Amino acid sequence: MRILGIDPGSRITGYGLIDSDGRQSRHVASGCIRLPEGALAERLGRIFREVGEIVAAHTPAVMVVEQVFVARNPASALKLGQARGAAICAGVVAGLSVHEYAPREIKLAVVGTGAADKTQVQHMIRLLLGLDAKPQADAADALAIAVCHAHTGLRLPRVVGGQA
Amino acid sequence: MRILGIDPGSRITGYGLIDSDGRQSRHVASGCIRLPEGALAERLGRIFREVGEIVAAHTPAVMVVEQVFVARNPASALKLGQARGAAICAGVVAGLSVHEYAPREIKLAVVGTGAADKTQVQHMIRLLLGLDAKPQADAADALAIAVCHAHTGLRLPRVVGGQA
Repeated sequence: MRILGIDPGSRITGYGLIDSDGRQSRHVASGCIRLPEGALAERLGRIFREVGEIVAAHTPAVMVVEQVFVARNPASALKLGQARGAAICAGVVAGLSVHEYAPREIKLAVVGTGAADKTQVQHMIRLLLGLDAKPQADAADALAIAVCHAHTGLRLPRVVGGQA
Repeated sequence: MRILGIDPGSRITGYGLIDSDGRQSRHVASGCIRLPEGALAERLGRIFREVGEIVAAHTPAVMVVEQVFVARNPASALKLGQARGAAICAGVVAGLSVHEYAPREIKLAVVGTGAADKTQVQHMIRLLLGLDAKPQADAADALAIAVCHAHTGLRLPRVVGGQA
């Protein structure tokens, strides 16, 4: 199954695509969408279009984003929310199912502990996907979200179904 | 010129369409999109699709939204941001230009004072557009945003051009 992880942000939106059967995962593509300074509508439209193009080019089956519980302040929460809204809409419009995981779940799935720091997550993503170089930070976060879904979302139904 | 005002919210998104030449405005349609409880992606997809349908049905030339400076707290700012992102993307994708006005500018344009309260705005919207009944609160806010653009956005270029 092809999974698209998205790490939306008001300035940089990371994306990461993996193929996974729930046990082994393969890196397909990753990178980040950097937004230029400019009008809000233009910036949101850019996220929406570029995520749409990534979906069209790589045809993932699902989109996965990190759940947000706390933001530093209302102003940054509003900006983050707008970017999330644009990215999620691009997935919904393309017919993808969209899943959310808490930051703790992502760390737990990738590193084995919910208290892992960002560097550990990036290190494990590089190892798990056999990457030559450390991916860009936002791309690594997006890949981690995708790997989390591969490790938990794809396995869970089997466990529930009693075939694990 | 046909103007679409949008008042995005995480539970109710108001919309209001007017035709205006910058002096006289006519009510075309207004109402609100009520989101059912449910998954985030579904709710955002609903805003995106319904705003898209309103744009397709009424073919406005511009979309206008209220600028947000403060939100009560990060959690509500995030939710509001997501709804805004979905609504604005629907306008951008349809090729509309998107304008933002500060709450104070909207009150000033509709009531004549930036310190007007919500009831005054609703009252003036009813009078200005010759409506039989008071519009629903979110629809009234959306109409006020559209009227603000009609009174300031459409007139401003003329003033600048020296033809006012």
